[in-house]
Amino acid sequence: MIVIMKPRSTNDDVGHVVKLLNAMGSGDCVVGGTGRKIVEVRNIDGRFDRAVLEKAPMVEKVLDKPEPIQAADRRSGEQTSEIPIGANATIGGRKIAVIAGPCSVETQAQLLEIARAVKEAGAVGLRGGAFKPRTTPYSFQGLGESGLEMLALAREETGLAIVTEVMSRDQVELVAKYADVLQVGSRNMHCSPLLTAVGQQSKPVLLKRGWSATLEEFLNAAEYIMQAGNRQVILCERGIRTFETHVRNTLALSVVPEIKRISRLPIIVDPSHGTGHTHLVAPMSNAAIACGADGLLVEVHHEPDRAWSDGDQSLGLDAFRALMRGLSAFSGAAGREV
Amino acid sequence: MIVIMKPRSTNDDVGHVVKLLNAMGSGDCVVGGTGRKIVEVRNIDGRFDRAVLEKAPMVEKVLDKPEPIQAADRRSGEQTSEIPIGANATIGGRKIAVIAGPCSVETQAQLLEIARAVKEAGAVGLRGGAFKPRTTPYSFQGLGESGLEMLALAREETGLAIVTEVMSRDQVELVAKYADVLQVGSRNMHCSPLLTAVGQQSKPVLLKRGWSATLEEFLNAAEYIMQAGNRQVILCERGIRTFETHVRNTLALSVVPEIKRISRLPIIVDPSHGTGHTHLVAPMSNAAIACGADGLLVEVHHEPDRAWSDGDQSLGLDAFRALMRGLSAFSGAAGREV
Amino acid sequence: MIVIMKPRSTNDDVGHVVKLLNAMGSGDCVVGGTGRKIVEVRNIDGRFDRAVLEKAPMVEKVLDKPEPIQAADRRSGEQTSEIPIGANATIGGRKIAVIAGPCSVETQAQLLEIARAVKEAGAVGLRGGAFKPRTTPYSFQGLGESGLEMLALAREETGLAIVTEVMSRDQVELVAKYADVLQVGSRNMHCSPLLTAVGQQSKPVLLKRGWSATLEEFLNAAEYIMQAGNRQVILCERGIRTFETHVRNTLALSVVPEIKRISRLPIIVDPSHGTGHTHLVAPMSNAAIACGADGLLVEVHHEPDRAWSDGDQSLGLDAFRALMRGLSAFSGAAGREV
Amino acid sequence: MIVIMKPRSTNDDVGHVVKLLNAMGSGDCVVGGTGRKIVEVRNIDGRFDRAVLEKAPMVEKVLDKPEPIQAADRRSGEQTSEIPIGANATIGGRKIAVIAGPCSVETQAQLLEIARAVKEAGAVGLRGGAFKPRTTPYSFQGLGESGLEMLALAREETGLAIVTEVMSRDQVELVAKYADVLQVGSRNMHCSPLLTAVGQQSKPVLLKRGWSATLEEFLNAAEYIMQAGNRQVILCERGIRTFETHVRNTLALSVVPEIKRISRLPIIVDPSHGTGHTHLVAPMSNAAIACGADGLLVEVHHEPDRAWSDGDQSLGLDAFRALMRGLSAFSGAAGREV
Repeated sequence: MIVIMKPRSTNDDVGHVVKLLNAMGSGDCVVGGTGRKIVEVRNIDGRFDRAVLEKAPMVEKVLDKPEPIQAADRRSGEQTSEIPIGANATIGGRKIAVIAGPCSVETQAQLLEIARAVKEAGAVGLRGGAFKPRTTPYSFQGLGESGLEMLALAREETGLAIVTEVMSRDQVELVAKYADVLQVGSRNMHCSPLLTAVGQQSKPVLLKRGWSATLEEFLNAAEYIMQAGNRQVILCERGIRTFETHVRNTLALSVVPEIKRISRLPIIVDPSHGTGHTHLVAPMSNAAIACGADGLLVEVHHEPDRAWSDGDQSLGLDAFRALMRGLSAFSGAAGREV
Repeated sequence: MIVIMKPRSTNDDVGHVVKLLNAMGSGDCVVGGTGRKIVEVRNIDGRFDRAVLEKAPMVEKVLDKPEPIQAADRRSGEQTSEIPIGANATIGGRKIAVIAGPCSVETQAQLLEIARAVKEAGAVGLRGGAFKPRTTPYSFQGLGESGLEMLALAREETGLAIVTEVMSRDQVELVAKYADVLQVGSRNMHCSPLLTAVGQQSKPVLLKRGWSATLEEFLNAAEYIMQAGNRQVILCERGIRTFETHVRNTLALSVVPEIKRISRLPIIVDPSHGTGHTHLVAPMSNAAIACGADGLLVEVHHEPDRAWSDGDQSLGLDAFRALMRGLSAFSGAAGREV
Repeated sequence: MIVIMKPRSTNDDVGHVVKLLNAMGSGDCVVGGTGRKIVEVRNIDGRFDRAVLEKAPMVEKVLDKPEPIQAADRRSGEQTSEIPIGANATIGGRKIAVIAGPCSVETQAQLLEIARAVKEAGAVGLRGGAFKPRTTPYSFQGLGESGLEMLALAREETGLAIVTEVMSRDQVELVAKYADVLQVGSRNMHCSPLLTAVGQQSKPVLLKRGWSATLEEFLNAAEYIMQAGNRQVILCERGIRTFETHVRNTLALSVVPEIKRISRLPIIVDPSHGTGHTHLVAPMSNAAIACGADGLLVEVHHEPDRAWSDGDQSLGLDAFRALMRGLSAFSGAAGREV
Repeated sequence: MIVIMKPRSTNDDVGHVVKLLNAMGSGDCVVGGTGRKIVEVRNIDGRFDRAVLEKAPMVEKVLDKPEPIQAADRRSGEQTSEIPIGANATIGGRKIAVIAGPCSVETQAQLLEIARAVKEAGAVGLRGGAFKPRTTPYSFQGLGESGLEMLALAREETGLAIVTEVMSRDQVELVAKYADVLQVGSRNMHCSPLLTAVGQQSKPVLLKRGWSATLEEFLNAAEYIMQAGNRQVILCERGIRTFETHVRNTLALSVVPEIKRISRLPIIVDPSHGTGHTHLVAPMSNAAIACGADGLLVEVHHEPDRAWSDGDQSLGLDAFRALMRGLSAFSGAAGREV
């Protein structure tokens, strides 16, 4: 059993709960929690009285077992949370939000050229990696802070919201200084210290699903962020790892309507990593919108053949414009606009 | 290396090819093939001359290695094959084809009630199992021939094309007597003797993807049918098996645009098995159409709570009508109609 | 609820059960079963009395729901069934049984050379495919009956038990005429008509796990065979399909001790398909014996580089001799002998 | 192409390489690397001369593409590296190393009781989590530094080497102060900043395979640690995520002999997470040793039913003693001792 304490509860409040539990014969209590104080109770015996606990000072809630979606739970009839990203856009409302840009920030010129093009085609956010998680230490690891500066300059010129990845607790402050949205990548979705750290920031977080995370684990990762205080979580489906070889990942779109049913958090889709091939990006973008996604995260490069990473799955500028034109009919069919 | 002989080539033609190969020093030849005669060559040495082979009588083609899509290959600019199903409908043309009905044929009354309702809502085919592949021998195995008779009567009354599963070579003749489309189920996609047997029939075949088959294996299974002489193959994506637990299967929609790119065969989607939950059927149907599917295969039951199998994923009649209404906007966005 | 009738129960016996159920208010009864007659009951209401059913004539058992291991259930303290294969060997007893041979029967000379060598090295069975399930119709499909004749001749000369695959109901009689053990391959594990057909034979059946079958489905497939009357089922783990690419399949050895715990059926391991690489065959064979396997199914070829199929995973004759020598220490450690 | 610089190369050395490349017409150079300086070269043209580069000052090696196992590569005939853990033991030599202990450090008394028992039974290391990665923020997250202190005290009393997890860069210094071996868990195997941080420590690192990491990704993660300067990496297979449900994970033992073939790093196996069930731990431990593992990581608890986490897969003290006794025959068969 789990006793969740209210925000700002003190150690004394927790001590009081433990005393109550001991008095009812529950000897094993574990005090923990990341953002919120929590008392986990074991070996409950017959004398246990739940109502006593629920009435104790600073107790918020008593749960029978950890549940994945406390903070993000969608009650019947409730709308998806509409989360502002940058100065000019939101995710989760009627408008489909498209975030586009290169896998890696390479040069200022490259970034500006792409940023202007995607802005004009209708994107509201600019993605681009300054810190890159790579499979081998012998690959390009990203430009670091100078990449962040380039992103900030691109925002100044275009007004696009900047979305960029943070890979480690010690990068959080730095990235938060430049970015409008902090991205937690697929490789780090299970990394609770990082989730807690971005949960202590005031910027929204784009949380990508781990490539082998169940939906429940995905929602629990969001819960870590929300428990630490940050309710602005944007989920992103980006494909899971399966036996299939014709795609880089298997885009598991059925999480989209399922998340819409059980959680208030907006959910967007990354058809670039989700397929690994440019020719599949547009059809899968259409499919994502058709089943209810709130937006897209798309890799775009002005010269995909010369991209420093992920060229195979990056759209060229013309292909991105065509994608945006094609989306509008499907957005309309879904009762949305792009 | 593979030498594919023309249709109607004789054993003498094959013998001639083998002699040529022996003369060029390739001692190991394997003569085989299911529908078409084939000579597989091993241990090719320096004297080998491909042009000699290509010019031999009754040789159609010389391949370096088995390729998945000989018969179904889409050449640039080619359209999807439009395949007639029953007297009144086709799959693969501009019109989205919806095939609906119960998992199992239970009674004539049940079947007629469902058939009338799905017909009125816009379906063109009636699905229903008379021979049921079940995980355990202690579950209902289907009504057999009396189920086929009920299906035939439902066709008479509604004009719907009948789609029903055949599980074994010895059932093929019987099922072909009643059905308009022979379904090969997911469990049997790898069963080459069955593929060859339905390939010798004149009725179209609905081939469901094995739940752990790669796209290449899926297309190769179609190739078995086509090599045996039957070019009317309709592919069906129905979800693959992954680690994910919130759905019965993971619907891998990216095969749809990939098949559209490389094969002429029409591809439909089964969102019922593909998700396992009624509340996901409509959104995933919309997504399927948005990424290019030619139709849907949907489980519908007049009383899902009392269905003899698959009740969790069967739509009730009202839900099916709502699905069909919702599809029309997405079909329009995809340049199709329902 | 499932009512399982005794063997040799008549339609009248079943009719009597249905009448009893109707009288107790359970309207929906489904009569089915493959080898054994079965009544499946739905919509049980308050008047239902289980004891009445259990006492009805020819009723064997009343189950709340289909259970995977009726026929093969291991009761506490029970031994693994020891199943004779051919005239000279058994599987499931103290002695580790090794079945070895080529993927495909190619020529009589090839087969005899391999058979003599594996016999001398300690094998008790000869494997070899005459009917081959292949991914593409453009690959060698096996020699058919002439391959079976070659196997029979190899048995005559060596005394090895012949293990060969049957892919379709219409091949069962033919294969059973020549083989000592009927193999059902991984691609056909879910094919219930085939399972039922081999279940009506008197020869033992080697049932390979489907490459994406759960353990429960695997045991249910065995149940199909046993319900049809054939209790001599030998299970075989041969690897499952995962995202991993360094092996052809992921050998899931933990099914071995789990099967030992819950089922009486012997379980052997195929380290050739289970890894796809010759250098992994010996270590994984040792591991299989260490965790309790009753035997091995190993691909051996006198010239692996020239094998017509599966050369990458076939051991040469020397490597097989080394494998057998190495096994003896691990068999001893496991309280067995080879 | 990748130019790997020698340790202690300066920015001037790198600048010299870039100048050479520019002179040869290769405009796009990316300077990076985590532990070692690296120049990644793109768009190589005809004037390129590899020998010039290889002779440049402080250049160590020129690679055509990132290769997974630079630092850990096993050359023909080479032995596995024998890595000291704590004062009294090594991993990778003739002796099988068993590391045992509770999932979570709970209390000093619990820990000492378990430590004494596993020491007496033959373990050389004590495992126990002070920082716990948990799926939900509402579960117990570990005792933190006080848990580390309890581990240190257990070492003082028993001489066991302490193995405990570090989850984040900012915990590395603290954990390294107490632990003998730094464990990087499955959830963090892809987290390159953490890998680099533990690579800068002088304590050995136990690297667990990500539950959906390919073997190549696993070895690349080790490479991150080694490139940062720490060559003492111990690999640990702990099961991968598949569709199978009878186990918590599928223990993929075939990585063991594959790693032995291509890498010098020792590899141990965690049969507790690798199966999730106590009754499978001993047989899979035997199998691990039989296929060449250098040791085991086993969860042991004096009262598994009351464990704060992972009780289902923890051996009790008697079961652990029985496991150790059983191992000795298999170790002998493998030419090792326990």
